[in-house]
Amino acid sequence: MRVLGIDPGVRITGYGCVEAPPGRDPSLVEAGVVRLVTRKDAGARSVSARLVELARDVRDLLERLRPDAVAVEALFAHYKHPATAIVMGHARGVILLEIASRRIPLVELRPAEVKKSLTGHGRAEKGGMQRAIQARFGLKDLPRPPDVADALAIALCAIERMGSPRVGEAGPDRLPTRRRGRSGRRLTMAELRRVLDSPR
Amino acid sequence: MRVLGIDPGVRITGYGCVEAPPGRDPSLVEAGVVRLVTRKDAGARSVSARLVELARDVRDLLERLRPDAVAVEALFAHYKHPATAIVMGHARGVILLEIASRRIPLVELRPAEVKKSLTGHGRAEKGGMQRAIQARFGLKDLPRPPDVADALAIALCAIERMGSPRVGEAGPDRLPTRRRGRSGRRLTMAELRRVLDSPR
Repeated sequence: MRVLGIDPGVRITGYGCVEAPPGRDPSLVEAGVVRLVTRKDAGARSVSARLVELARDVRDLLERLRPDAVAVEALFAHYKHPATAIVMGHARGVILLEIASRRIPLVELRPAEVKKSLTGHGRAEKGGMQRAIQARFGLKDLPRPPDVADALAIALCAIERMGSPRVGEAGPDRLPTRRRGRSGRRLTMAELRRVLDSPR
Repeated sequence: MRVLGIDPGVRITGYGCVEAPPGRDPSLVEAGVVRLVTRKDAGARSVSARLVELARDVRDLLERLRPDAVAVEALFAHYKHPATAIVMGHARGVILLEIASRRIPLVELRPAEVKKSLTGHGRAEKGGMQRAIQARFGLKDLPRPPDVADALAIALCAIERMGSPRVGEAGPDRLPTRRRGRSGRRLTMAELRRVLDSPR
């Protein structure tokens, strides 16, 4: 099971790819950022030109990393500035389009769920997420920018939700059983698609 | 000069295609709506599945109508609910992507500019826009839903801004000269691309 986590942002979109081989700890495949330059930045590139680049970058990631599922944070509405929310929505819309066009299963997670899954509490700050990701994967340095850590946390949380019993510091009893299939085993891809396609 | 106006909405995206032959009044080529069903609706289709459909619908429009330019309203932040703004941003992002992927010139217009161009004042209401569009094109019925009238108004305003002197009830002296080229004549496509690509 290989999951790509994506954290769409106004200027920076983080991504992190995690693999969870049966019975082993999840390992980091690759992580990084894709930058979305907006008009406020020095460059004169328009938002739409940047969306074309973002779509191409996401397409390249999906084709190169070949994830079994992609995880993103669900729609959330805690922005103070609607203009930020709209630009964020542009990037997220393009990312969802590229994922859905390839019929790759999509996992949507609440931000608090991602934070809690990694650190044990739903209001962890950026630095806390970075340190937790550093510890989890035994990284020499703190993952930077924070968007990379967030994307990896999203991928880990998705793996946990999809029922890999080795993920999650608190052990399998904290896994959402609803998402684990009848016997708590890992879901097959066909089952996974059914779970993900069903309305929540 | 053929311009496609698009009015992206949370549930309904209006489109209107207008042609302005040299020296003649602009005529209506085609107008209609594309529906974006969100999760709140009865159907269980996810936002991302609908974005795939929206992208396909926009692609079909662009290929069938072959506009010289596409006009959309600029980013605006007057939403009361950020969640609405985000979903709106998803749709708009996908639409901009499809336009920019085909290197079709994009015209972004402020909503007040579109309203003022059609009705003479920047705060026209839905019904006023519909009646103005009905009168302008001599339509038997009021264009419905209002999103169709808005999309046609966007296309007309874009044609006006691009310097077709026959458009705009107030006459050519109200046209923004900055967008009309050196001599106030219609811009060539090459000039148009330069104007549109330049940072504002």
